[in-house]
Amino acid sequence: MATTETVKARTLLAECSAEFAGTFILILFGVGVVAQVVAGGIGDHDSISWAWGIGVTMGVYVSARISGAHINPAVTIALAAFRGFAWRKVLPYIVAQFLGAFAAALVVRWNYDKVLQHFDPGLTIKSQGVFSTLPGNGSTELGVGMWGGFLDQIIGTAILMLVILAIVDLRNTAPMANLGPFMIGLLVVGIGMAWGTLAGYAINPARDFGPRLASFLTGYGGAFKDQFGDPYFWVPIVGPIIGALIGAFLYDLLVGRHLPVSDEDEEPGRVPDEETTA
Amino acid sequence: MATTETVKARTLLAECSAEFAGTFILILFGVGVVAQVVAGGIGDHDSISWAWGIGVTMGVYVSARISGAHINPAVTIALAAFRGFAWRKVLPYIVAQFLGAFAAALVVRWNYDKVLQHFDPGLTIKSQGVFSTLPGNGSTELGVGMWGGFLDQIIGTAILMLVILAIVDLRNTAPMANLGPFMIGLLVVGIGMAWGTLAGYAINPARDFGPRLASFLTGYGGAFKDQFGDPYFWVPIVGPIIGALIGAFLYDLLVGRHLPVSDEDEEPGRVPDEETTA
Amino acid sequence: MATTETVKARTLLAECSAEFAGTFILILFGVGVVAQVVAGGIGDHDSISWAWGIGVTMGVYVSARISGAHINPAVTIALAAFRGFAWRKVLPYIVAQFLGAFAAALVVRWNYDKVLQHFDPGLTIKSQGVFSTLPGNGSTELGVGMWGGFLDQIIGTAILMLVILAIVDLRNTAPMANLGPFMIGLLVVGIGMAWGTLAGYAINPARDFGPRLASFLTGYGGAFKDQFGDPYFWVPIVGPIIGALIGAFLYDLLVGRHLPVSDEDEEPGRVPDEETTA
Amino acid sequence: MATTETVKARTLLAECSAEFAGTFILILFGVGVVAQVVAGGIGDHDSISWAWGIGVTMGVYVSARISGAHINPAVTIALAAFRGFAWRKVLPYIVAQFLGAFAAALVVRWNYDKVLQHFDPGLTIKSQGVFSTLPGNGSTELGVGMWGGFLDQIIGTAILMLVILAIVDLRNTAPMANLGPFMIGLLVVGIGMAWGTLAGYAINPARDFGPRLASFLTGYGGAFKDQFGDPYFWVPIVGPIIGALIGAFLYDLLVGRHLPVSDEDEEPGRVPDEETTA
Repeated sequence: MATTETVKARTLLAECSAEFAGTFILILFGVGVVAQVVAGGIGDHDSISWAWGIGVTMGVYVSARISGAHINPAVTIALAAFRGFAWRKVLPYIVAQFLGAFAAALVVRWNYDKVLQHFDPGLTIKSQGVFSTLPGNGSTELGVGMWGGFLDQIIGTAILMLVILAIVDLRNTAPMANLGPFMIGLLVVGIGMAWGTLAGYAINPARDFGPRLASFLTGYGGAFKDQFGDPYFWVPIVGPIIGALIGAFLYDLLVGRHLPVSDEDEEPGRVPDEETTA
Repeated sequence: MATTETVKARTLLAECSAEFAGTFILILFGVGVVAQVVAGGIGDHDSISWAWGIGVTMGVYVSARISGAHINPAVTIALAAFRGFAWRKVLPYIVAQFLGAFAAALVVRWNYDKVLQHFDPGLTIKSQGVFSTLPGNGSTELGVGMWGGFLDQIIGTAILMLVILAIVDLRNTAPMANLGPFMIGLLVVGIGMAWGTLAGYAINPARDFGPRLASFLTGYGGAFKDQFGDPYFWVPIVGPIIGALIGAFLYDLLVGRHLPVSDEDEEPGRVPDEETTA
Repeated sequence: MATTETVKARTLLAECSAEFAGTFILILFGVGVVAQVVAGGIGDHDSISWAWGIGVTMGVYVSARISGAHINPAVTIALAAFRGFAWRKVLPYIVAQFLGAFAAALVVRWNYDKVLQHFDPGLTIKSQGVFSTLPGNGSTELGVGMWGGFLDQIIGTAILMLVILAIVDLRNTAPMANLGPFMIGLLVVGIGMAWGTLAGYAINPARDFGPRLASFLTGYGGAFKDQFGDPYFWVPIVGPIIGALIGAFLYDLLVGRHLPVSDEDEEPGRVPDEETTA
Repeated sequence: MATTETVKARTLLAECSAEFAGTFILILFGVGVVAQVVAGGIGDHDSISWAWGIGVTMGVYVSARISGAHINPAVTIALAAFRGFAWRKVLPYIVAQFLGAFAAALVVRWNYDKVLQHFDPGLTIKSQGVFSTLPGNGSTELGVGMWGGFLDQIIGTAILMLVILAIVDLRNTAPMANLGPFMIGLLVVGIGMAWGTLAGYAINPARDFGPRLASFLTGYGGAFKDQFGDPYFWVPIVGPIIGALIGAFLYDLLVGRHLPVSDEDEEPGRVPDEETTA
C-alpha cells in the first residue's frame, strides 16, 4: 500500500511528464515554423503567428487533464502567486517545461539541419532567431535593444496572463465543451500579430531558454547574446515572469474581484491531486 | 447593510471596470497590430484583420459576465435603444470604454515608441493610422474623403450590429458553450477584410477616439484631421452610432420580429443586476 | 383566428425575410471583400476565401432558426429533392435569395463607387469580377472558357452540398452547440482556396446572378458575358444546381444510407412550420 | 435473417464506404489547393496549410460516425496496434482510403487539366508536387534527399498521431460538442506550417500514393521518382507508418498511462459494430 508521500511523488511525476509532453509539442510547432519560414523560406510572419498558436492549443490538449497545462514557467509562477497552485510543485514544473522545450528544439535542430546549414552555414545570429528571441527580431536599425525587449516582454506576458485567467475563469464566460485550449491558442496568435515586433513574443521562459540552450549545444556559439553583443538570454526569462504577475494582478483588480465567489475557481478538467483524496 | 442605491453604484462601478478592461484588451491587440504592421513592417492587412478580431474575442471574454461586453459605445447605445439596456448606464459605459481604449493606446505608444520614431520621425499622418482611422486609409489618390468615410462607417457598423444581435439572440441559433465571443471576433475579422477600404473600419467610437486622443497627447499634432486637412475625428464617432441603430432596426425588422417570443432575449451569461434582485 | 392558409403565408413570408437577410449579409461580406482586394488593393486571395467563408457563417447565424439558412438556390433545390423540403417553397426562397444578393451588391456598389471608378473608370471586365464570376477569373491565358467553368462549378458545388449534408446530419457527427454555421463557413473557405481557379467558386446561383444584375444596372454593360464575349451568366446558375444534386446523391450513397435511421434528420434549430402544428 | 458473418461484411462495407468518402473529400481539398496555388498561381503556402487542414476536418465530419474517420493508413495501423482496432479491418480500410484518394486526385486532374497543361505542358516534376510529395518540395539546392524526407515524415506523423490521441481521448481534455474534427484539422494546419519544408508533410500514405498513382496514369511518367531520379514513392508510405506508431507510443508513455482508466477510451460518436451486439 502506497504511503501518502509515495502517491504525492507519483502524482508529481505524472504532472511533470504531462508538462514535458505539452511543452514538447508546443516547441515542435513553434521552433518548427520559424525554421520553415526563416531558413526554409516557406510561409511568412502570419504562418509563425498561427503555428505558435496552434502549438499552444495542441500542447494544452495533450497535458491539460493531468497537469493543468501551464507549459510556461511564467504561468506556473503566476498561478502559484494568485491561484493557490502549490509552491512545492513550481520548480519541478519549470524543470519539466524547460526539458520539453529543450528536447523539442533538438528534434527541430536535427530534422532541419541541412536546411539551416544551407541558409546559414556558420550557424550565426542570422538563424539564431529560429531558436530563441532577439530584440527587434535581430534588427540593428530599429534601435530596439535589451531594455526595449524587456519592457515589451513584460507587457506581452501581462496580456497573456490577464486573458488566460479570464478564459479559464468559470465564474466569468469561460468557453465550455473543452474549448479553452483553442481560445488560448487564438490568444497567442493575436499576441504574435500585435506584440511581436520588439522582442519576438517569447512570453514564456521555457520557450526561449530551452531552444536557446539546444542551439548553443549544437553549434550556435553566440546563442546567449543579442545582435549588439549584449547578454540577452535573461530578458525572455525575467520579463515574462514579471509580466505574468502583473497580468494576474490586473485581472483580479479589474474583473476577478467583481465576480461572484460561489463557483469554485479551479482549473477545469483537472484530475484532482490524489493527495487531497488520500 | 447596503442600501439599494449603494448596491446600484457598486454594481455600475464593477460594470465600468469590466468595460474598461475589455476595451483595454481590445485596443492592446488592435492598435498593437497596426503598429507592428505599419511601423514594424511585420505582417500585412490580413494580420490586422485577424488581430483586431482576436482582440474583440479576448476583450469580450474578459468582460462578458460582468458588463455584457459591449466594449463599443455604438453597441451600448443600440442596446439601450433596442434591447432595454438602462439609459442611465449609457454614459458611464461609454466613458469607461473611452478610458480603456485611451489607456491601451498609451501602452502601445510607449512600447512602440522607438519603432514609430524610426518609421516616422515627425510623428505625422504617415503613422497616424496606427492609432486612428483616416478616409481611404490616408490615400489621397482614391478620392475618398470625409463623407465617403461617413457612409462607409454607417454601413460597416450596421453590419456589425445586425449580426451581433443574431449571434447573441437565444431565440435564434446562438452559439452555445460560451462561444459567442469567438463568433463576434470572427465577424470583425470579416468586416476588416471586406469593409476596411474607405475608412479603416473603426465601427467603434471608443476604438477610434481613445487612441486618437492618446496620439495627440504624445506628439501627433494632426491627430484630429485627415490627410486633406479636414476635421475627421467626428466621423468614426457619429457614423458608427447611426450605423448601429440602423443595424439593430434591420435585424428586428427582417428576423427578430419573426422569432418566437417565449425565450427571454437576455444577454447570455450576464450576472443580473443586483438591483433587480434587491 | 387565422386560417391555416393565412398562417402558412405568414410563415413563408417570415422564411423569405430570413433568407433575404441571410443572403444579404453573405453578399455584403463576399462582394465587399472582392471590391476591397481587387479595386481597393487591400488583402489578397486568402482574404477573399476567409471573408466569403465568414459571410456564410454570419448569414447562416442570421437566418438559421427561421428559414433553415439555405441562402443558396442550389442548396434549396437539393434539399427539396433529397430532404423533403417543400417544393412549393422553393421558388419563394430562391426569389428572396436573389433579392438579398441583389440588394447587398447595390450597397457595395454604392459604398465602393469611388474606389471602383478609380480602379476601372470604364466599369469594364477589369472590375466585373468584383460582382460576378468569370471563367479562369477573367484570364485569357489559362485557356479556361465556359465549359471549363461549367464542369468546375458542378464539382465545387457537389463538394459543398456533400459536406453540408454531413455537417447538419444529426445521425452523423454533426457539430453541436450551434456551431454548424461556423463549420459551413470553414467549408466555403476551403472551397475558395482549392476550387477557385477555374470559375471563381460561385457555387451559388444567387451569389452570382444577384450581384451580376446589380452591376449591369449600375454601369457594367458587359456583365452577362465573359472575357471572350460569350454569354456566361447561366454557368454559375446551372452548374451549381446540377452539382448540389450530385453532391446530395453522393452523400446518401456513400454515407447517409449507412447511418441509423432512428434519429430524425431534421434541420437542427429550425422553428417548425406552424402549419405542421396547426 | 442475416447471419453474423453477413452482418459483419455489411458493416465493414459501410465502414469502407465512409473511409472512401472521407479520404475523397480530404484529397479534393488537399490536391485541389496545391493545383490552385502551384499551377493556378492563386494563393500561397498558407492557403495550402489551411485548405489541407480544412480538408481533414471535412473528411472527418463526413466519415466519423460510421468508420471512425481514420482517412489515413498510418492512423489505422497505429489504432490497431495501440487502441484495439480490429486487425482484420486494417487492410480493407487502407484499400478504401487509397481508392478515395486516387478517385479524388483524378477529379482534380480532370478539372485542372488546362491549368496544369498551361503551367507545365510536359507534365514534369515541375507540377508533380501538385499530386505527390517530393524531398525538399522538389528543391535541388536545399540538399534534402530521400533520407531527409524519411526522417521528416517519421517525426511529422509522430506529432500528428500523438496529438490525435490526445484530442480524442475522453479521459483527457477532449473537445466536446463534436468539435474534435475541427481540432484535428487545425493540427494539420500547424503541421503544414511547421513541418512542411523537407518532405511536403504527406503524413498519410493514402494521401501521397493515391494521387501519385493517379498522376502517373494520366501523363506524369516520372511520378514515382524524386528530382534526383531516386525512387521516392515509398518514403511517404513507410515514414508515416513508423511515425504514427512512435507517436502513439509516446502519447501513452508520457500522458496516456497517467490518466484514470475508468472512462472507456472508445472513439467518440462511433456506431458500434453490429457484430458486438449480435
